[in-house]
Amino acid sequence: MEKKRLLVDMDHVMADITTNYIRYYKQATGILVQREDLMGKPEDAAFPQPQLIHEFLFTPGFFRTAPVMEGSQHVMKILNQVYDVSIVSAAMEFPQSLREKYDWLAEHFPFITWQQIILCGSKKWISGDYMIDDHFKNLNYFNGERILFTATHNSHIHKQGYTRVNNWNEVRQLLVKEEVHSI
Amino acid sequence: MEKKRLLVDMDHVMADITTNYIRYYKQATGILVQREDLMGKPEDAAFPQPQLIHEFLFTPGFFRTAPVMEGSQHVMKILNQVYDVSIVSAAMEFPQSLREKYDWLAEHFPFITWQQIILCGSKKWISGDYMIDDHFKNLNYFNGERILFTATHNSHIHKQGYTRVNNWNEVRQLLVKEEVHSI
Repeated sequence: MEKKRLLVDMDHVMADITTNYIRYYKQATGILVQREDLMGKPEDAAFPQPQLIHEFLFTPGFFRTAPVMEGSQHVMKILNQVYDVSIVSAAMEFPQSLREKYDWLAEHFPFITWQQIILCGSKKWISGDYMIDDHFKNLNYFNGERILFTATHNSHIHKQGYTRVNNWNEVRQLLVKEEVHSI
Repeated sequence: MEKKRLLVDMDHVMADITTNYIRYYKQATGILVQREDLMGKPEDAAFPQPQLIHEFLFTPGFFRTAPVMEGSQHVMKILNQVYDVSIVSAAMEFPQSLREKYDWLAEHFPFITWQQIILCGSKKWISGDYMIDDHFKNLNYFNGERILFTATHNSHIHKQGYTRVNNWNEVRQLLVKEEVHSI
């Protein structure tokens, strides 16, 4: 039987961009913003100097140094057996991030091959059976099953037509049947 | 009415990779290979040292310095008005090319926005109404209309299910109705 196609986003799903915002912000301003204070707000709104967040996104090294989301490596290894997986990242707005994202995947997810990576401007042309993403704007175009990964910027939004997952354990519960848990 | 979706390949379609092979090969070996000698052969087979062609593909600057295919800028400007255009390049095998391709498009096709660019490993996840490509392996997956752009490596292959175009003037004749020729 042909494997189902699963599209997985990078930022805020595989890569812990929020932690890197906090780190970079602390380094730039000396101010340590608490993750709890970011909940329910747009990505930059909780930071006293929001324009810094925008600058970080264009700063060489920002995406390359993002921590890996807890549990993502283990669960992605399982999903990569069960599904026809592609990593789909809307990276094109930040051209310096293209190579960084490739290198970041090669380091942290070496079982993902270059054939499985898509870096794009918009995700509306990409088809599949399941999409995991933290942005409604990406999921909205998608005609398969839409899985919203909780991030600080979407935690307060509730809509019909999406299955919310709060962490990678919940991704596994949703997408992996019991018999392959042991991979 | 919603615009039809048109996917356009870069290498051998917008970018004249064959001319760059010949240039780089001449510089590396002193041997000037004639374009006519490449017709009907795989991309590297007509060069006395085929492994050099493979090396060029990983050489920084190779994709950035590719000449623009004759007529492509003018016709793409028209197509970009008529269609919902995306540039789709299977660039991921050559990670150094990612930024180069972005910069090459920004220089030679400034009317193409970052939202319209997709750099991927495989094109099998990308959907649309028309795809222009020089490789059967990319067109084969596509469920819209398949337009094969003639390149030295495909000039001898004839298959059902593809419309062949030999140059950008033929692309225009195929895809643009008379009334918008004057754009």
